[in-house]
This record gives sequence, structure tokens and C-alpha cells, in this order.
Amino acid sequence: MANRNKRQLPLAERFKDNNIKIFALGGLDEVGKNMYVVECGDEIIVIDSGIMFPGTGFGVDYVIPDYTYLKNNEEKIVGLFITHGHEDHIGGIPYLLRRVRIPKVYATGIAVSLIKNKLSEFRNLQINFVEYNHNSVFDFKNFQVSFFRTNHSIPDSFGIAIKTRLGYIIHTGDFKFDFTPLFKHTEYAKLTSYSEKGVLCLLSDSTNANVSKFAVSEKKIGESIKTIFGQIKGRIIISTFASNVHRIQQIVEASVEHGRKIIVFGRSMEKTVNVSQQLNYIQAPPGTFITAKEFPHLPPNKITILSTGSQGEPLAALSRIADGTHRTIKIIPGDTIVFSSSPIPGNQEAINRTINKLYRAGCNVIVNSPLTDTHASGHASETELMIMLALTRPKYFVPIHGEFSMLKRHAELAVATGVKPENCFILDNGEVLTFSDNKVAITHRVQSGDVYIDSNNFDIDNSIIRERRVLSDDGMLAVIFSSHKYKLNREPNIVSRGFIYVKDSGELIEDISEKAKTIYNDYYNRTKRFHPNHVINIISNELTEYIYEKTEKKPMVVPIIMNY
Amino acid sequence: MANRNKRQLPLAERFKDNNIKIFALGGLDEVGKNMYVVECGDEIIVIDSGIMFPGTGFGVDYVIPDYTYLKNNEEKIVGLFITHGHEDHIGGIPYLLRRVRIPKVYATGIAVSLIKNKLSEFRNLQINFVEYNHNSVFDFKNFQVSFFRTNHSIPDSFGIAIKTRLGYIIHTGDFKFDFTPLFKHTEYAKLTSYSEKGVLCLLSDSTNANVSKFAVSEKKIGESIKTIFGQIKGRIIISTFASNVHRIQQIVEASVEHGRKIIVFGRSMEKTVNVSQQLNYIQAPPGTFITAKEFPHLPPNKITILSTGSQGEPLAALSRIADGTHRTIKIIPGDTIVFSSSPIPGNQEAINRTINKLYRAGCNVIVNSPLTDTHASGHASETELMIMLALTRPKYFVPIHGEFSMLKRHAELAVATGVKPENCFILDNGEVLTFSDNKVAITHRVQSGDVYIDSNNFDIDNSIIRERRVLSDDGMLAVIFSSHKYKLNREPNIVSRGFIYVKDSGELIEDISEKAKTIYNDYYNRTKRFHPNHVINIISNELTEYIYEKTEKKPMVVPIIMNY
Repeated sequence: MANRNKRQLPLAERFKDNNIKIFALGGLDEVGKNMYVVECGDEIIVIDSGIMFPGTGFGVDYVIPDYTYLKNNEEKIVGLFITHGHEDHIGGIPYLLRRVRIPKVYATGIAVSLIKNKLSEFRNLQINFVEYNHNSVFDFKNFQVSFFRTNHSIPDSFGIAIKTRLGYIIHTGDFKFDFTPLFKHTEYAKLTSYSEKGVLCLLSDSTNANVSKFAVSEKKIGESIKTIFGQIKGRIIISTFASNVHRIQQIVEASVEHGRKIIVFGRSMEKTVNVSQQLNYIQAPPGTFITAKEFPHLPPNKITILSTGSQGEPLAALSRIADGTHRTIKIIPGDTIVFSSSPIPGNQEAINRTINKLYRAGCNVIVNSPLTDTHASGHASETELMIMLALTRPKYFVPIHGEFSMLKRHAELAVATGVKPENCFILDNGEVLTFSDNKVAITHRVQSGDVYIDSNNFDIDNSIIRERRVLSDDGMLAVIFSSHKYKLNREPNIVSRGFIYVKDSGELIEDISEKAKTIYNDYYNRTKRFHPNHVINIISNELTEYIYEKTEKKPMVVPIIMNY
Repeated sequence: MANRNKRQLPLAERFKDNNIKIFALGGLDEVGKNMYVVECGDEIIVIDSGIMFPGTGFGVDYVIPDYTYLKNNEEKIVGLFITHGHEDHIGGIPYLLRRVRIPKVYATGIAVSLIKNKLSEFRNLQINFVEYNHNSVFDFKNFQVSFFRTNHSIPDSFGIAIKTRLGYIIHTGDFKFDFTPLFKHTEYAKLTSYSEKGVLCLLSDSTNANVSKFAVSEKKIGESIKTIFGQIKGRIIISTFASNVHRIQQIVEASVEHGRKIIVFGRSMEKTVNVSQQLNYIQAPPGTFITAKEFPHLPPNKITILSTGSQGEPLAALSRIADGTHRTIKIIPGDTIVFSSSPIPGNQEAINRTINKLYRAGCNVIVNSPLTDTHASGHASETELMIMLALTRPKYFVPIHGEFSMLKRHAELAVATGVKPENCFILDNGEVLTFSDNKVAITHRVQSGDVYIDSNNFDIDNSIIRERRVLSDDGMLAVIFSSHKYKLNREPNIVSRGFIYVKDSGELIEDISEKAKTIYNDYYNRTKRFHPNHVINIISNELTEYIYEKTEKKPMVVPIIMNY
């Protein structure tokens, strides 16, 4: 495959107007914030608009892509095409719509409901939906867009086929192959038909490229869950991803089979169950779902509690149950907790904390393992990825959705199925792969990066994150200078938080105060025109250095000048 | 087993003076900071003094136990007994010695060298070493202490047998069973001899209680490493735990066999190699280890680079190599990185980052897997734990070293081997298990908890950590009041860091300033005697609430009163 180290990024060449460009604004060398762009002439197709969950803290709730390129080329955008309803594919839509005019959003089934639900939390956002189905075809000047059904861990997952003058561009979305699906089969015939007509480039999901085991069928998981339910005598508290509608249906069936009523906890889970019942994806005999008022009257072996929190999220229902702070559910001996889920990278610690609390509270805990099979991944592993490559036979290949090691492994798989190594491109977010009539190359880079979103759905400036990082490590130290016409008229006042206790550190504080005064007076004496911001910068830098020499710590120094 | 929920902690009973008490100050419901105490009459035996690595940030480098109980009972301590030289067993020694008079530290082999090395970084710490060997016996009034050799991932690992008037108390230390050890066998005969004489209580390592697979022998790993070395054509960069001396010896042997010279990077790795060569644990033909000056002259297939950083530690040699910032080693195409290690919980993300960087840089990367077998755990899994229980046949059982789920699983294993459920005690740090002539019970609790240590080896107060947590999430906002005889004489001045940009938020800042003034003046007008600290508290609380209402954020509010 094209080696990223050797490859030179040449100066942007002048391509003809009808060259086809493919790039990602998010989703490469990371898991999340998926957003891919296909551009030709004056037309831009955007595929997906996801968020990523940060592992960082610092008050960051979500990470979204930098939308600058789309904003600057807004008039070219013909539409946003959504492959499926997961947060890493739809979560960014409100933030995108706030910044960029998107004429139409193409989506289908449960994704439409989930997007509508999401937008209801934002004011003044208008969206122009086009609901596609598996037979839809949309014509543009340079593109014809159609869809193929896939199997994934949420219903109504589709891949996108973009017909161009140079051949098909196939974007798989997230997928796995499930040969005994609960709902509908992957549209295999479409995949081979693209191959017959000629696939220019395949962009395919790399999430599980490092996994050798074939993904377990969702049907098998349903059977395991029924078996487990048959063995449990007390209450069952089962947690899964709120969006995994098929899983929820299987939990419903297992509950019905064993005479259990179901009570649902967690806002996102309640939302999914409502939406999915409307769409008939979740079907249950009347009276299966009960309310918090009804359930105390049932014996433990008649109760299934379906809850959010399979990732150990501190505010989710399951964590509150484990903590003993849930408003309705208190753990009783004999409860069994079933994790019908797997840890998303970065969440293992939080999940362990929850599991330990549940054990302490006297529960039994069942997690997914080769023995229990309570969860199946929604992503294709090695062999399945090779099946996709074999069915579509692309000339060029761009692995998408995943960290670098996954992308690299996926490229190796592509080569194994017959794609030429030099035709595999492991891109970075922002790197543009340009297809002209006689040449394919990475030609240039567009602006890309991370934008941080806080709990109020606002951007957090990178400089604020940097400040929080400093504050987090070593705290802060305010130095208040009191002056008359900028001449100091008393000793500087030192106030610290998160650094050291001022009362325990008299000598250090005196030294710092003395040093601060010296720096201030040096400036005051040598300067002709006193600039407060100038001296503030000098004090910040010099005092930070002084404190580091004395303490090996770098608190944020905040000089404040009070002038009278 | 005794259920921790049902059990009542009765008021401390008056036991006779010769009751035997067992408790942990660290190591229960956590992985790390191991410290166990056995007490009888006026004698206290302390076993191990470890640190834990925090996953938290906030400028915390290590966590150690709260030593208050030992400080308050200092005159009773007869000695600190070290089972082996890992940081979670010896890392706390300098901090312990600073606070508590420890008459003697009993240790052996490489642990002694590692402790001496560690203490050389601390000034004014005196230590009274007693070097034990496998035949040593130490007599005290109430105890006779002896030792049994075990297998673990560092040489010279021992369990401790404490003979008491009620029978043996056996503390396994960390262990696994390796039936083809590189060095010496576990002293099986001693274990059965304790059992014949009567084991009162077994305290046994639970780290891998949830692992069903029998630990792989270190010898097998050596063979895998030789096989892998035989297949690699370019340079080999191999990373393992610096303390895993046997592993290093096997890497040495594989290198010698394939004609490779070894260069060592990373301070802790250099230290281990030096110490271990002195102790003859690492043996290599002369000229096997080379210096940074010699190695550029060798062809790639003659080079093994042995490095720290298998846990993705950002400052370790391997991370610097991956970042391209290492002073000597630059990645060249054809390099192969071998991780002869497994991720410690919490480090997976950092390791993934390193692996992705290495792939990007064009390396091949080999990690431990059932196919590669580049690493074996040092801890006993299910079957091995049952072997230990079967060999020692304890009357009472206390699982140690591990999170609650591991302790619980280990207790289940003990019951399976024949320990009565009511004789298994899953303790918390600080909970005291008391053995009297006719009764065994958890009788009371001693002070225990976490103490945070920063990069300068000083304690960080919990309140400082709390402040850093607040600062980290939402930043801070200083409000400076200027007054004459505490009567405000100008508008409050607002300075923020890590919260919002003051220049972008004029209106909000004005509102906050106005509110601050109102709160201040309310207090000023209604109070007879002005207490600055009093009004500072009021402003903190009320302004925090006000800001939360307006922004749903809780920055740290820092009111500062400048009075003239």
C-alpha cells in the first residue's frame, strides 16, 4: 500500500474541474466523529455527521469535526447523507446545521426519528429531510446516489453507492455480515452489481479489522439471552446500548417467554423503546412494559429491568442503581445484572467500577464472554471485511472508521483480496484523494481538526482547554498588585487554589510575593509608558519560571493590577 | 462466604491482649499500594509497603496508604517484611520511613538492591536492613516468621509464613505456579508442611482470580521470543517491564542466539540490567551489551534495542521513539517493535496511542496474543489459586490483592476447595479480622485511605485535589473587590481562566459583577462587624449558584477583598 512516510504531498496541482475528490473531516485515525466528503465540480456530498466522546475531562462532553471547509464551500453542498442512526454518525448534525447551510438531509427509518428527537433539544434549527429507502436513487450533475442495506447493531443501516463518471464510489457505513439476521439481509446482489459495473473506490468500516473472530449473529445472542433468563431466579437488570433495537426486541422476547414484565430506565432507553414501538421494530404483547408504580407489586422472578449504563457512565441508570442512588431501584440480594454489551475503548475502568459496586451490593453479574455470548459486535471482522472486498472488487481502497492500526490492517486485508498495494490509501483527516482521468493521488489537505463541545452544546475554545489542563495539574496562583498611577502602594497579595495551602507555605508565598514585586518594579522603573497587559505577560512568564525552579510545579499565574 | 452486607460491625469488643488481628492498609478492592498488618499483643508485623498508580491526573504521581495507624502504634512495630521488589510492594517505603519509625526492614535479593536504589533518591532516610533467605526464621514474642519461595515475574519472590499460637498465617505475596521455572521452583514442601501443622488463615493473591487460563510458563515465553527473533530481519525494539529480570535474560539469550547485540534504553531498564548482572540474574557473553556510540555501526539485523515504555508511558523510551523525539533512536523502515508485556488496567489507551504512532512511523508491531505468546502473567489464575488452597488447607481465608470482583471470585474458589463459606472474609482496607481463642470476627476498623503524592514526593492534600477537579472542569473566576474600610469604592473586577473569555462575554461578566456587588453590599449593610472571611464564603456560595443558573457551569469562584 502507499506508504505514508515516503509519499510527498506535492503542491496542489491544477486538476480539471471534473476531478473527483474524497476526504474525511472526521473518522480517520480515531473512532468517532465520522464525516466523509465526496466532491466533484461544484457539487459536494457529505456522508454522516458524527460526534466522538472524549476521554479527556476538562468539561468536554463531545468532540466534533472542524466544519470550516464546509462553511467555506457551503454553496456546493447538495446534501448530507446519513448511513445510520448512531451518535458517531448523526450526533454532530445540530452543530453542523448551526454553522453550515445544508439544503437536504437524506436519512431513513429509525435514524430519522433519532435525528428529529435530537433536534427537538435545539432551538431554531430547521432541517429539510428527504427520507430514502433501499430503492431510492438521487441524481445530481456529477453523481447518482443510491443505497444498499447492511446489517449492523441498529436497524435501517445502509451503505451508500455514488455513481461517478469514473465508476462507483462505495461507502459501507458501519456493517457486519449477519447470515441469520433478525430483520433483513444485506443486499448482496447490489454489491456484486456495483462490482460488475466497476467500483472505482471502496471506503470500508475498519473498526474490527484487528479482530479475527467472525462476528456472532444477533440471533445467536437472542438464544443466549433466553438461556440465561431461564436460569435466573431473581430480578434481572439488563443493560445494553440504547440504540440496539434488535437486542432490545430479543430481551423483550426472552422476558415474555419467561413471564417477566419489563420496566425501562434511562432517558435514551425510554426514547428508543418509544420510537421503536412506533416503527414496529419492538413488538410486545400488551402489558409487557410496566411503569415504576406497578412493578413493586410483582415478585422478583417476574421482573426485567432494562437500563442504560452498560458503559459505566456515572449518570446512567445502572450506575445510580450500583451507587444506591437510583430513585426507584434498590438492589436486593438475588438480583442478577446482565451486561448485553462490550466495553467501548476507554470505558473499561468505569465499567469495572460499576461491576465492583454491584458485586459489593450483593448482585450476580454476567458480562459478555465466549461462554455467555450476551453481546455481538456490529462491526465486520477480518473475514467479513474480505467478503466485502471480494463482492465489490474495488480498484482503489480507502479504509475508514478506525485508529491507524485498524486502517493499516484493513489495507493489508484489501491487498490480500487483490487490490494493488499502491492503490490502497491510508488517509489522514483532511487529506484529499483526487481521482482524475489518468491519475490518482493525495493532492492536498483541507482544514480539519477537533472542536470541543460542552454540556450546554457550545464550543469550548482550545485555549480554554489548555488553561483547564494547566489548572488541573497544578492549580492557580493569583497575584494582586495594588497601585496608584501604577506605582505599587502595598505588598502584592497572593491567593492560591489547587496549588498549595497559603497558610502552610508562608515562606514560599513571601518569596513569590517578593519576586512578583521585583519584576513589577523593574518594569515600572525602566518603562516610559506603562502598559498593564505588557507587565502582566512579563510577570506571568517570569513568575511561572521562578515558581517552577522552587517547586517543580507550574501553577497558572494570574497577575491582577488594581490601579487607583 | 460471610456476606458483607448482612454483617454488622459490633462495637469494638474487649478481646484479650493475645488476640491476633489481621488487616490491610492497602491492596483490598484495588490493585496496588499493598500493605498488610498482623498484630498480636504489643507486636505489629507489617507486610509490604507499596504504591498505586492513579488513573486520575490532577498532578498525582502515586497513591500510598494512610499510615496514621502505624504512626500511632509505632512502638509496637517489630518490622516491615517485603515479599518482592515490585513497586506496588516496595514503592511506599520512603514515604513510610519518613513518617513512621520502622526498626527493621526484612527483604531479600533483588528487592534489597531496588529498595537501596530507591532510597538513594531521598535524603536523610535511614534503613535497617535484615536480608533474609529461604531458610531464615525470625522469632518474636508472639510470632515466628519464616519464608517460602514462589514464582513470579521478578526474581526472589517469597511468601511469608507467620507461626502464631493459633496456627500459621500464610501470606502468599504475588505468585504463580511455574512448573518449568527459569530459576528455582516454588517451595511446595513448605506449603504442605504448614498445612500439616495447621494453617489458621491464608491471605492469597487475587489479581488473576477472574482468569481461567493457566499462567504460561516463563520458559514457554522464552521459546516464543526466540522463534520471533528468528523471523525478524531488521532491528528489534523490544519492551517489557523493567523489573522482569527473567524475561530480560530470555531476551538476552534470544539476541545472543541470533547474533544480535543489545542496547538498553530507559532509566529503570538500565538500573535493572546493572543490578541483575551484579546478582548474576542476567548473564551474557562479554560484549553483548553495547553503548549508544557503538550501535550505529552495526547492521539492523545485529541489533536488539531493549527499552522501557511497554505501558505507553509518555516519557518512557518507547514513547519517545514512537514520537520521533528520542535522542538516539529514530525509527527506520523494517524495524519491528515487540511488546513483551500486557496492558495494566487503565493503560490500554496510552498503549494504543503508542502502537498507532509506531505503525504510522512504518514499523511492524508484535503484541502479546495467544498466537505470539510474548508475555506471561506473573499471577496465579483459577486453577493455580486452587492449588495454593489445596496445598495449604487453611481454616480461614482472606483474598488479598485485587478489586472486589476478584476477591469475591477468589473466595468462591476457596469455598470450592473446601473452606467453609462463613470462614471466608472479603475485607475492606482498614477492617480488622480478629482471631480469639473461640471466635473469629470483623471487630472494628482502623483508619485507612488514600494519600496522594506529587512529582516532588510530597503529599497533596485532598482539598487541593478537590480544587483541581473543579478548576479542571469549569475553570475559575476571580472577583476582586476594592474597598475603603470595607466599603466598596469601585466596581468589582472580574478575571477568569479556563471558564469563558471575558472579552466574548461582556454581558455575562457585567451581570456577575453586578450580582457580586449586591451580595457584598447586602452583607456590608446588614452586618455590625465586617468579617472578610465571612463575606468571602457567602460570595463564593451565592455567586457559584448564580453562575450555575445562568450558564450551567460551576467555575471556582475566588473572591478577593482589597481593603484600603
